[in-house]
Amino acid sequence: MERVTDISSLRKRLRKETSIAFVPTMGNLHEGHLSLVRTAKQYADCTVVSIFVNQLQFSPTEDYNKYPRTLEKDCALLKDINADVVFIPNEKILYPETQEFLLMLPPVAHILEGKYRPGFFRGVTTVVLKLFNIIQPQKAIFGKKDYQQLYIVDKMIKQLNLPVKIIACDTVRMHDGLAQSSRNCYLNENQRSESIRLYQTLYQIKKSVEDGNDNFKMLQDNAIKNMIQHNWKVDYITIRQRSTLEPAVFNENNNNLIVLGAAWLDDIRLIDNIEIHT
Amino acid sequence: MERVTDISSLRKRLRKETSIAFVPTMGNLHEGHLSLVRTAKQYADCTVVSIFVNQLQFSPTEDYNKYPRTLEKDCALLKDINADVVFIPNEKILYPETQEFLLMLPPVAHILEGKYRPGFFRGVTTVVLKLFNIIQPQKAIFGKKDYQQLYIVDKMIKQLNLPVKIIACDTVRMHDGLAQSSRNCYLNENQRSESIRLYQTLYQIKKSVEDGNDNFKMLQDNAIKNMIQHNWKVDYITIRQRSTLEPAVFNENNNNLIVLGAAWLDDIRLIDNIEIHT
Repeated sequence: MERVTDISSLRKRLRKETSIAFVPTMGNLHEGHLSLVRTAKQYADCTVVSIFVNQLQFSPTEDYNKYPRTLEKDCALLKDINADVVFIPNEKILYPETQEFLLMLPPVAHILEGKYRPGFFRGVTTVVLKLFNIIQPQKAIFGKKDYQQLYIVDKMIKQLNLPVKIIACDTVRMHDGLAQSSRNCYLNENQRSESIRLYQTLYQIKKSVEDGNDNFKMLQDNAIKNMIQHNWKVDYITIRQRSTLEPAVFNENNNNLIVLGAAWLDDIRLIDNIEIHT
Repeated sequence: MERVTDISSLRKRLRKETSIAFVPTMGNLHEGHLSLVRTAKQYADCTVVSIFVNQLQFSPTEDYNKYPRTLEKDCALLKDINADVVFIPNEKILYPETQEFLLMLPPVAHILEGKYRPGFFRGVTTVVLKLFNIIQPQKAIFGKKDYQQLYIVDKMIKQLNLPVKIIACDTVRMHDGLAQSSRNCYLNENQRSESIRLYQTLYQIKKSVEDGNDNFKMLQDNAIKNMIQHNWKVDYITIRQRSTLEPAVFNENNNNLIVLGAAWLDDIRLIDNIEIHT
C-alpha cells in the first residue's frame, strides 16, 4: 500500500491504472469505512482511499479541531485489507488559496442535515468534486449512514455529468444496533448505552410503517417525545420519500420510504436512518 | 469528421483516444474559432469541437433567441480543417432537468462583463465544467477575445483541480482591426465601419501607456468621452492588471497590463481587449 501526500505524485501513480474505485474518508476508520474499501476492491483494479478532515464542511461551532485523527492506526487497517493507495493531503495541498469556486446546491441540500449544519453540504460537495477531479475514479463508494450526503453527491454527479458511478453501501452497526461512526469515540459509558435509543426509535417507526401504520405525524411526534423524555435534544426524526427526501405521504404503492433521525446526547450529535420496505 | 449529438455515444467514441483537445463554441464559426481548432490539432490526436448555444449564460434581455445559428455551414468549415468530432447536444441533452448545481464564483466574476451581464460567468463556467466532464480533454482551447472568460475558466480549473490545461489563443481580427465575433453579423454597413472605433480606441490607449503615459484615469476618461461623442454607449474602457483584472496602478516594473472595453453601437454590444507591453 502506497501513501501519497501531494497531487502530482498521486496523478503520476494513478496514470497507468485502468480502473479506479475511490473511498473518500475523514479518517478515524471503523468497520463502516472498511466495508466501503472491501466493496471498492470488487469494482476496480486499484482502490484509492483519501483521508482528509475537510474544514470547509465544518461550521465554526463544530468539532473540527477535536475531530479524532488516528492516521497511523488508519493506515495499518487499510494495509490489512489491501487498499492500494492512501491519499493524505494536508490543508495547503487541497486548498492552496481560499476556495472561491464553490457549489450552489439544490433545495434538498437545505433540509434535514442542511438545515442544522449550514454550509455542510457545500463543503462536502466541493471537496468531493475536487477529489474526483484529482483521482478520476470510475467508481466512488459511499455509505448509507450519511444518506442525504449520498443522495446529494449522486445528484451532483448527474447534474455535472461527472464520469463517476456511485456505489452505495449499507450502514455497518455495532452488535446492539448503533451505527458505526467516527464520532462514537466521543461517547462515555453511560452515553454509549443510551446511544442505541436513536436506532431503536427509528427501527420501531420502520416496523410500524411496514405493519401498516400510516399516521406518520403521530409516529414521528411520539418518537421525538420519547427521545426528549430520555434527555435527548432532537434535530429531526422524520419519514421521507427516498427518491426526493421530501416528507412522506402515505400511499399503498409507496415502497420507497426512509426514516431519518438526528439527535443530541449531551454535546454529541448522532445521526442514523433506516430504509422502510412497505 | 463525426457529428455526435448524445453523451453516451460521445463517451464511447472518445474512450479509445489517448489525447483530446477541446474547443467549446456556440457555433456561427468564424476565423477566430477556426484558429482555435487549428491550435487544438497541434496539441492532441483528437480534436473535439462543441456547438451549443448555452441559454444558461444569457440573461432574459439578451439575444439568446436571435443568436445566429448556422450549423451546416459550421460543420462544413470544421470538416475542411479536419476537426475529428463535433459534439452538437440539444438543450435536453445538456440540461435534462433544471440545472440546480451551479458554480458560485469569486469576485473577479462580478466585475467588467460580470457587472454588465449578471449570471453570464455562472452560465459559462457551469456549461464548461459539464462539457469538460463529458469530453475529458487534456487541453482546452480558448480565445483571448473573451479575456475575462479565459481568466475565470483557468481559475476554475485550478481551484477545482480539473485535469485540463488551457491553451490561450490570440484574438483574430478583420483587416481593419475589428475583432472577429459571431455578433459582428448583426452590424449593418454603417455600423460595420463605425465598429472599428472600439479597437482603435483600445489600441491608442495601449500605445500611450507603452509610450510612458501613466495617467490611466485621463486616458480612460478621454477614450470614453470620444466614444460617446460618436454615439457609442460605453459599459467600460479600463486598464487592468492581467494577473488579477483589478484596476491597474502604474508601476515601472509592471509589464503585465491589459486594456479592456465593452460598448454598444445602437443595440449591438461589442467587446475587445489588447495586452499592453511596457
